[in-house]
Amino acid sequence: MSLYPERPAEPLFTERTPRVVSASKLLRVAGRRKAGRFLAEGANAAEAALAAGVVEELYATVDGAERYAAWLPATVALVTDRAMRGLSETVTPPGVVAVCRLLDAHDLPADVRLVAVPVDIADPGNAGTVIRVSDAVGADAVVLAGESVDPHNGKCVRSSAGSVFHLPLVRRRDAEAVVADLRARGLTVLATAADGEVSLDDADELLARPTAWLFGNEAHGLSRELQTLADHRVRIPIRGRAESLNLATAASICLYQSARVQARSDA
Amino acid sequence: MSLYPERPAEPLFTERTPRVVSASKLLRVAGRRKAGRFLAEGANAAEAALAAGVVEELYATVDGAERYAAWLPATVALVTDRAMRGLSETVTPPGVVAVCRLLDAHDLPADVRLVAVPVDIADPGNAGTVIRVSDAVGADAVVLAGESVDPHNGKCVRSSAGSVFHLPLVRRRDAEAVVADLRARGLTVLATAADGEVSLDDADELLARPTAWLFGNEAHGLSRELQTLADHRVRIPIRGRAESLNLATAASICLYQSARVQARSDA
Repeated sequence: MSLYPERPAEPLFTERTPRVVSASKLLRVAGRRKAGRFLAEGANAAEAALAAGVVEELYATVDGAERYAAWLPATVALVTDRAMRGLSETVTPPGVVAVCRLLDAHDLPADVRLVAVPVDIADPGNAGTVIRVSDAVGADAVVLAGESVDPHNGKCVRSSAGSVFHLPLVRRRDAEAVVADLRARGLTVLATAADGEVSLDDADELLARPTAWLFGNEAHGLSRELQTLADHRVRIPIRGRAESLNLATAASICLYQSARVQARSDA
Repeated sequence: MSLYPERPAEPLFTERTPRVVSASKLLRVAGRRKAGRFLAEGANAAEAALAAGVVEELYATVDGAERYAAWLPATVALVTDRAMRGLSETVTPPGVVAVCRLLDAHDLPADVRLVAVPVDIADPGNAGTVIRVSDAVGADAVVLAGESVDPHNGKCVRSSAGSVFHLPLVRRRDAEAVVADLRARGLTVLATAADGEVSLDDADELLARPTAWLFGNEAHGLSRELQTLADHRVRIPIRGRAESLNLATAASICLYQSARVQARSDA
């Protein structure tokens, strides 16, 4: 029984079908760069990718096609479970994978009030989490600065829970040029720093302004040079005995606080 | 050349030394349960464990012993690199591992104002992160409720960055009894819920009270029953297009906000 009775019954694509072989190469950074495509694995990423209009190809297992029939277009290609395993990085392969055009926005949108700027982020899970939080608080864009991880990495896409498709992602090698650009756009640039001179507790007045937040590398934080280039260095007060917070939790606290203060000043 | 010239030169312990064999069994939950011990891997966990006075044995490589000479006691046992790999779960084994007594506090401290209650947390990295944030904001205790992961799991210990040793950790299977106990102690119990009737933006008055925060499972959140048992259900407002925040970031935002409001009402 075919799911799509109007189409002639077709054999399922296998891991040897040329299209599937090509798509599986997108699991590697070299393959993504060559093809200008990447994979969005799982229902919530694939659905967000479709809504964003960046999907080139869609693959689903027979089970996946039934489960997601409500939103999967008829153009979905059905693949064997084994072919799906070859398109997936996860232990339990998803029911659906989308081949998408790369996401990099070349520039920031014209009018921005809240921008997250992770610098030299090494871990794709952290990058995805920061993108998800930025989306949740309503930030206007994320700038991945310095030697940050590729946001098209599968782990980043998955940990963003679809948010990579929701807001502009800009990648810039030169973090100092990013800071200069953000300031030229009228944004106050805040650097997170354990010894920052401003406590986040006392920063509400500052946070009402259009703001770009710099978040540093997981192990080393932000360089002194970047901290100095920022308008202010902000610390999250540590009230217990932990030495610090991790990158994603620190970013969440700062971004929520900014969004809350900006929403209040609008009211 | 010996690091400890006052001791007779001793051969390094190997992966076959009985003490090392016993310690390596603590990588598994059954081994931890049987011995009543667990492993704290890496310099920051081992140093925090020493400060907490829960260390029974210490193992270091020759390199580790030199690097951490400032705080390692002379009783440290030197092991081969290969033996250290057998005591470690990480790709790059640490220079030092401590065998520690289990941490579970049997009850909450008498006087608590801010308590984090992760319920049915499945991922040890998330549990460790919530413990780290709870420590950072100065919470008085963490109650791991329901079917939550073992906090002595290596990944939990590592992601807590030493915080498992900094504040009381209580484990309780019966989450409903936990809520009743917390309320009996005069704490206002707040449940995080995507559709909560109180926005965190408007909760400052509530947060000034002694508070226990319930955080739900990564995939399913808190059960309706637990949400109903809480005094209030609080939502973090979503201003963008993300569907939700992940557990650790949501917990960070709520806990920071509570600590900030409580500190302000003290002033």
